Amino acid sequence: MHVNHGLMRKGESEQVIDVFKNQMDANLVYVDATDRFLGKLVDVAEPEAKRKIIGAEFIRVFEEEARKVGNEVSFLAQGTIYPDILESKDGVKAHHNVGGLPDDLQFELCKPVKLLYKDEVRVVGRELGLPENMVERQSFPGPGLGVRCLGAITCDRLEALREADAIVREEIGKAGLTIWQYFAVVPDFRTTGVREGKRAYDWPCIIRCINTVDVMTAEVPELDWALLKRITARITAEVPGICRVCYDLMPKPVGTVEWE
Amino acid sequence: MHVNHGLMRKGESEQVIDVFKNQMDANLVYVDATDRFLGKLVDVAEPEAKRKIIGAEFIRVFEEEARKVGNEVSFLAQGTIYPDILESKDGVKAHHNVGGLPDDLQFELCKPVKLLYKDEVRVVGRELGLPENMVERQSFPGPGLGVRCLGAITCDRLEALREADAIVREEIGKAGLTIWQYFAVVPDFRTTGVREGKRAYDWPCIIRCINTVDVMTAEVPELDWALLKRITARITAEVPGICRVCYDLMPKPVGTVEWE
Repeated sequence: MHVNHGLMRKGESEQVIDVFKNQMDANLVYVDATDRFLGKLVDVAEPEAKRKIIGAEFIRVFEEEARKVGNEVSFLAQGTIYPDILESKDGVKAHHNVGGLPDDLQFELCKPVKLLYKDEVRVVGRELGLPENMVERQSFPGPGLGVRCLGAITCDRLEALREADAIVREEIGKAGLTIWQYFAVVPDFRTTGVREGKRAYDWPCIIRCINTVDVMTAEVPELDWALLKRITARITAEVPGICRVCYDLMPKPVGTVEWE
Repeated sequence: MHVNHGLMRKGESEQVIDVFKNQMDANLVYVDATDRFLGKLVDVAEPEAKRKIIGAEFIRVFEEEARKVGNEVSFLAQGTIYPDILESKDGVKAHHNVGGLPDDLQFELCKPVKLLYKDEVRVVGRELGLPENMVERQSFPGPGLGVRCLGAITCDRLEALREADAIVREEIGKAGLTIWQYFAVVPDFRTTGVREGKRAYDWPCIIRCINTVDVMTAEVPELDWALLKRITARITAEVPGICRVCYDLMPKPVGTVEWE
């Protein structure tokens, strides 16, 4: 089952469907739960509250859809990996696949890769013969763009984030660089700009790139200035509502990979 | 008269006093109006409102102090330069030295450099024999750190900004680079980090550097990555309350030099 919570990257649900249905011939159930998730998130600004709402809602959707399939659904498989467990235990972040599940969960949980780091998970994926573009797919958090559209999510800012993120991924992809993870973040505040001599008062967008082996520590790649400038020019020209772009310089620690 | 509105950079009032009193032997009146300005700014988040409050309060302080000196104060000289006028006219920003003055202003205004761009102002300064460190001093907006401590100003975030800004200026100064303007900005929202394995939830800090001739357009210098990383490491290690650092990539236009 692929649940689209409305917080997927641009073109992502289409891609997931393509991989499972066309490349793997899997019996995929697709559920568009966009309105349901975004409705629950209205005016919720606190990052941990957002993560928990999204995690709980996933389970409810799974339960409802499982009932439609019939009574034969007994297991819920989760892609929990070891850093999720470590970070949840230490209270760094609530990974919704660690704890936070409803007490009356109707499935038996199955977490086959919970003791593996990401690089080890990819080895397993290759051994299982999964398509390479699936194995090498960038890490993407369960709450998706929900934790990159910082603070209380609105549809217009979420849409600006989705478009800016697509530009970041397209340009870095075209440059042929090997970067572990690269994406955009749009915080919930505005900054001044000037367009055609007039005042603009729009959101900034942050480019976040990291290289890592195990996600417990991460370094910021030294991108070419020409590439950074091209991304900046494209985002501010093509994405309504964004008038400034920054590059996140923060290694982990002290920063986390995600902003919230 | 030097009015310290509590929004000066680290060590700046001391420096102004030193230049005027010791290097120029001027009859300087120093007024510490920190509490007065910060009191008026409590809970004021809207950038234009902040600029107007600061501008109006400056005039009130000048008036009060002028009365103390006696009745012989007839003129108020302002350092308004041409881009201030252009930007205020087009509604890009309210420069507090352009319009926004109280109707009952008790001084005759004198704006000797109002038709000059910044580089021309520096030529005039040298012709007048002003100290080189004063002529070459970085541009600093009238509202000072007030428009770099984004949104509603709080004492703890203002102090974090002041310390981070001092590190940016120290490191770029030591590197011997010729950069028109370089400073720090601290927005009013938090981002996650991890310190000694535990969750941190602190402010990000943005490094803003620009090169320009006339301040009507500006380019972002391509700083050495080693320098950017050193500044990032120092700020997150030395400044309480900051757990992430970004570099502003935005030329003017579409961004303005200041964030609000």
